[in-house]
Amino acid sequence: MTKKNSHLFELLILGSSSAIPSDDRFPSAQLLNIREQLFLIDCGEATQNRLWSFKVRWSKISHICISHLHGDHVFGLPGLITSFSHLQRKEPLTICGPEGIQDFLEGTLRHSRAHLNFEIHYLELDHRSGTKFYNDGLLSITSFPLNHRVPTIGYVFKVEEHYRKLNIEKISQYAIPVSQYKKVVAGESISDMEGNVYTSDEFSAPVHYLKSYAYCSDTRYDESIIPFIKDVDVLYHETTYLEALAHKAQETGHSTAHQAATMAEKAGVQRLITGHYSSRYHELNVFLQECQSVFPNTILGKEGLLVQI
Amino acid sequence: MTKKNSHLFELLILGSSSAIPSDDRFPSAQLLNIREQLFLIDCGEATQNRLWSFKVRWSKISHICISHLHGDHVFGLPGLITSFSHLQRKEPLTICGPEGIQDFLEGTLRHSRAHLNFEIHYLELDHRSGTKFYNDGLLSITSFPLNHRVPTIGYVFKVEEHYRKLNIEKISQYAIPVSQYKKVVAGESISDMEGNVYTSDEFSAPVHYLKSYAYCSDTRYDESIIPFIKDVDVLYHETTYLEALAHKAQETGHSTAHQAATMAEKAGVQRLITGHYSSRYHELNVFLQECQSVFPNTILGKEGLLVQI
Repeated sequence: MTKKNSHLFELLILGSSSAIPSDDRFPSAQLLNIREQLFLIDCGEATQNRLWSFKVRWSKISHICISHLHGDHVFGLPGLITSFSHLQRKEPLTICGPEGIQDFLEGTLRHSRAHLNFEIHYLELDHRSGTKFYNDGLLSITSFPLNHRVPTIGYVFKVEEHYRKLNIEKISQYAIPVSQYKKVVAGESISDMEGNVYTSDEFSAPVHYLKSYAYCSDTRYDESIIPFIKDVDVLYHETTYLEALAHKAQETGHSTAHQAATMAEKAGVQRLITGHYSSRYHELNVFLQECQSVFPNTILGKEGLLVQI
Repeated sequence: MTKKNSHLFELLILGSSSAIPSDDRFPSAQLLNIREQLFLIDCGEATQNRLWSFKVRWSKISHICISHLHGDHVFGLPGLITSFSHLQRKEPLTICGPEGIQDFLEGTLRHSRAHLNFEIHYLELDHRSGTKFYNDGLLSITSFPLNHRVPTIGYVFKVEEHYRKLNIEKISQYAIPVSQYKKVVAGESISDMEGNVYTSDEFSAPVHYLKSYAYCSDTRYDESIIPFIKDVDVLYHETTYLEALAHKAQETGHSTAHQAATMAEKAGVQRLITGHYSSRYHELNVFLQECQSVFPNTILGKEGLLVQI
């Protein structure tokens, strides 16, 4: 009756490294499970191996959202797409990303003579402005500009729902058949066995359910993205460097942990997840410490981390 | 003096799966270490992660030999090349493979806007005939045609050396200065402190050192390749299927374990290594058993296997 159990909105980190991976860190990839519909965000090399490792049911991936065309965000795409085909996928797949994503993938697949069993719908998004490009009435996805060396976009996933929650304790004290409960949560008036009429408000209350997740990688610290990520429940913001290398972050189009935490603070988000660590850092807890000095509610992103949004 | 210690010729298996990898099986890649010069053979997705895992000193890779352009043999190449560049490689790299390898790699790198710090020399090889394309006087590499669905080439690596081995036990009984030993193994006559003259043959014997490794993936069973792989010390021959699926092997351009073992037997090789297993097989010992029923000296190829050739 209430929709609480069906509110699955879960994030799995598949890769947390930046350009150079190691034996246990993999380049960018994340998986969102929104009520059993899967959205893959970025697809660095070996993403398909991570999907196997974490026992993900690949076939439920309906969309792949690519931030930009640097290799550590897309080099896993040709292999994943080819494996989809080998595994007899039939359902169409939507791939979103900046201009050039279709050329990249089709070019690579053509050279390797891959024949796909399923259709790919490409959605090339404007990297200069925000675009709400998906809306199924419950979930909306908006792309927005990031500030990197090449055209790069962030994504915000928003699940929003208005519904009525039944007051089961109260209604069960009345002689109202269970078959009437549906009417209550639909906002209709009902009557008991003796003919007394009750409004929906007497046994239920309106709920505004709103959960959101924003993905920001790769980007310089840039406050112009705040309007897009404001108040989200969970923000992933890249933390390639520590603050001691702020000049390097600026030069290469990346952010420091301190900058990501400042962004989280200024945007009023609930929780921050870190990631995209430069391979020069072997120990990652320093990222957590640097963030938490500014924004305590930070989670250290790493392979296998599962976050309920 | 003798060259025995410098005869390093070692094979490391990096990937043993066919098209669909899993969390612990990776697509085709092998590494040959020939006297500290490294040759990478095929480069399936996540090869660079395997190189980290096995603590390989990447920078020593001078050549990458690609068999064909199917994704499970090349999708690790763009990431590896990009990482070489991030790691500040300066030495040129030679990439050999069938026609199209340059287009594939350059196209992929162009889309991802990768800028390399080092030069790549491409060597596109004829997939219809044998070509000895490398010869440094010690090591030669010959490509030869395989029988697959797309242009595919095998490689045979041959280290051949004629030298003289010093009889250290005998020579040390004479009053001959150690400084003369070099002359002996160079084939020259020498004299002792009393002026007696000895020919090189008295203290050394000629040695013909010859070791070879052949790589055959992917291919149907095809006896026309025997002249190229005849008598090699170690043969890698793909075993995608067991004999029960011989029809499937024929149809898809692959071989069964039984066929690979028959090939090893007919070509008179010393040892056979299996690999490129279809993902339908979870337990691999059946491949070893099927091969050994025909060719006992078979080794089960899998990630991390190190073979001295």
